[in-house]
Amino acid sequence: MRSYALQYKTELLDSVIPFWMNHSKDDEYGGYFTSLDRDGSVFDTDKWIWLQGREVWAFATFYNKIEKRREWLDMALHGADFLRKHGADASGAHYFGLTREGKPLIQPYNVFSDCFCAMGYGALAIALPDSEYGAVAKNLFEAILKRRENPKGPKGIYSKVIPETRPLKSFALPMILCNLALELESVLDKAYVDTLVRDLAAEIMRDYYQPRFGCILENVAPDGSFVDSFEGRTFSPGHGIEAMWFLMDIGERLGDRALIDRAVEITLATIEKGWDGEFGGIFYFMDVKGKYPLQLECDQKLWWVHLEALVACAKGYRLTKDVRLAERFKQIHEYAWARFRDPEHPEWYGYLNRRGEPLFPLKGGKWKGCFHLPRALHQVWCALEDVE
Amino acid sequence: MRSYALQYKTELLDSVIPFWMNHSKDDEYGGYFTSLDRDGSVFDTDKWIWLQGREVWAFATFYNKIEKRREWLDMALHGADFLRKHGADASGAHYFGLTREGKPLIQPYNVFSDCFCAMGYGALAIALPDSEYGAVAKNLFEAILKRRENPKGPKGIYSKVIPETRPLKSFALPMILCNLALELESVLDKAYVDTLVRDLAAEIMRDYYQPRFGCILENVAPDGSFVDSFEGRTFSPGHGIEAMWFLMDIGERLGDRALIDRAVEITLATIEKGWDGEFGGIFYFMDVKGKYPLQLECDQKLWWVHLEALVACAKGYRLTKDVRLAERFKQIHEYAWARFRDPEHPEWYGYLNRRGEPLFPLKGGKWKGCFHLPRALHQVWCALEDVE
Repeated sequence: MRSYALQYKTELLDSVIPFWMNHSKDDEYGGYFTSLDRDGSVFDTDKWIWLQGREVWAFATFYNKIEKRREWLDMALHGADFLRKHGADASGAHYFGLTREGKPLIQPYNVFSDCFCAMGYGALAIALPDSEYGAVAKNLFEAILKRRENPKGPKGIYSKVIPETRPLKSFALPMILCNLALELESVLDKAYVDTLVRDLAAEIMRDYYQPRFGCILENVAPDGSFVDSFEGRTFSPGHGIEAMWFLMDIGERLGDRALIDRAVEITLATIEKGWDGEFGGIFYFMDVKGKYPLQLECDQKLWWVHLEALVACAKGYRLTKDVRLAERFKQIHEYAWARFRDPEHPEWYGYLNRRGEPLFPLKGGKWKGCFHLPRALHQVWCALEDVE
Repeated sequence: MRSYALQYKTELLDSVIPFWMNHSKDDEYGGYFTSLDRDGSVFDTDKWIWLQGREVWAFATFYNKIEKRREWLDMALHGADFLRKHGADASGAHYFGLTREGKPLIQPYNVFSDCFCAMGYGALAIALPDSEYGAVAKNLFEAILKRRENPKGPKGIYSKVIPETRPLKSFALPMILCNLALELESVLDKAYVDTLVRDLAAEIMRDYYQPRFGCILENVAPDGSFVDSFEGRTFSPGHGIEAMWFLMDIGERLGDRALIDRAVEITLATIEKGWDGEFGGIFYFMDVKGKYPLQLECDQKLWWVHLEALVACAKGYRLTKDVRLAERFKQIHEYAWARFRDPEHPEWYGYLNRRGEPLFPLKGGKWKGCFHLPRALHQVWCALEDVE
């Protein structure tokens, strides 16, 4: 497994980081372009806050964890400046989308804009401990926790659901908080983070993990029971697998070996359940009862699903040396590098059809930016470089 | 072309109508099941208002236009009773979704729930002129026109867009009003309908039809100019084609030959532009500049797109005898009957992948009900039965 580390490191440093450095910086208006075609040319200039915050995080994290290269820090600050100027409304909630110039396009209906901006600011607070970014990240994190308590859910007034009829809680927010709390460790209190992530891990294993189906579900009743509706039957293998490596990080932090072992078993079961026996790769969405998900794109193979699976397998292998993880890692590695990687231009394709052929040649868009690929390359590299 | 009429009539009367009669009626709670598996078995019991209203319309229309069969009228009334009891909130706006029992699940964020209920009630007003349905349909139609004037758009408070930054108007509402106004003719004033549909047709041809691209776009600036954003570049061939047969109906009603000829040319150009040269069939979504639509399912082949194209070609052929329409009709007919029709069970598949293979075997779901297929079979039958 150790021999893979160099391949992931090289791809990150020689291909993926340069792609974003060369093509995504908007020198005129600030912030980043993320709608980048196969060769990096810009095909749309709107700025989606998830991806702006994530790219700030990515470059600040390269600076913090790989090497103190001034150009990486400057690239992160370039995005943070734009977000500080244009990202949030008067209440401090982050919009979902802006024009190239920074005018608001889509309201702050979605709490994940706040999450990814907090993540970006938190990484900058590590790079620049005396800056304002620590306080900004901390305030944002507190606002996210407050939105979480909204009885209409984190979407608040923008929610179309009538929660009294069929109350559901969504996996997305507790999942991302697991990761965000660890990322913001430097600006939060250590004991507070320990308690928060312990509680989140317990909630996920108790409520979202469904022993009946052997996997994590996207939406469950507030008491964790299964709801037999389109939303309640929704199973997103990539989401479940990504969460399992967040839980492995938490297990390592808390010294909770049982949590790590359980996360490993769920990772393996989820990959098994999500694997396409006919064409290979992991499905995007499934109906856990074998019926039909609402997402028509359910049988597609998405870059982030496979990259998060590689991280979960590599990290789990480092922690447990379980050979089943090494086998899965190799299988997904072969699949992903052969199909998502573009042999002619840097960066990877994001969207393949069920057969593993590119649906679009784009390297970035409204939902794909500088995040899952570089993060996964870095995580796998770090997980495997010292492994026996 | 005349020889096709019997095939469409037989499929409608012997297969499609019986399928919905046999499987969709909820005798216990009222209304209709629409989430029906390949063989008609119910796989989910939620009730989506679009589909409830559309099925009321379908059965009332079979009664009005095919034959005065009591069972069809009873089936329509069965759905209308449920909608009258549970469909709308206190203000009269129709919810988007209900539980099987009729409890509200999703707020009335979407004006099309009102549109399809008005259509259903309007068809019942023709069947039962002394009933309350005429007044109910008329009130609903007026409320829809009022929602249309909301400065935040017909979604009102549920809209996440900040319209000041990039004002857009959507094709969906004017398009559906073209059809709805004609359907509600019996409850509205004739001169009023004439003016309304003439104005709608003029707006569509002036603002949504873009000569630069030779097709209808889904979203344009309020003055009809092209907006180079993801939404502005969105091209939905099926939507454009469906609207063209609505405009042919309007042209026939108004005696406007030029409108009919223009609708025919746009139909042909849209099919040409939307046709998949490699695997056949018409794409679901495209980016009009050849970039990438946001809808990952864009390359799929949907039942309604092909059925609306068959209606547009058959109706246009009856009105103009243009042989290009007969050729396109035959091509799409061969494609659709070979792939969407299920040789083993009644009703048609809804969702094929790009290669024309069924994505799901379901016959109905959250978005597919008793509407496009039976309406198209009836329309093609009527268009072609007396054609030379």
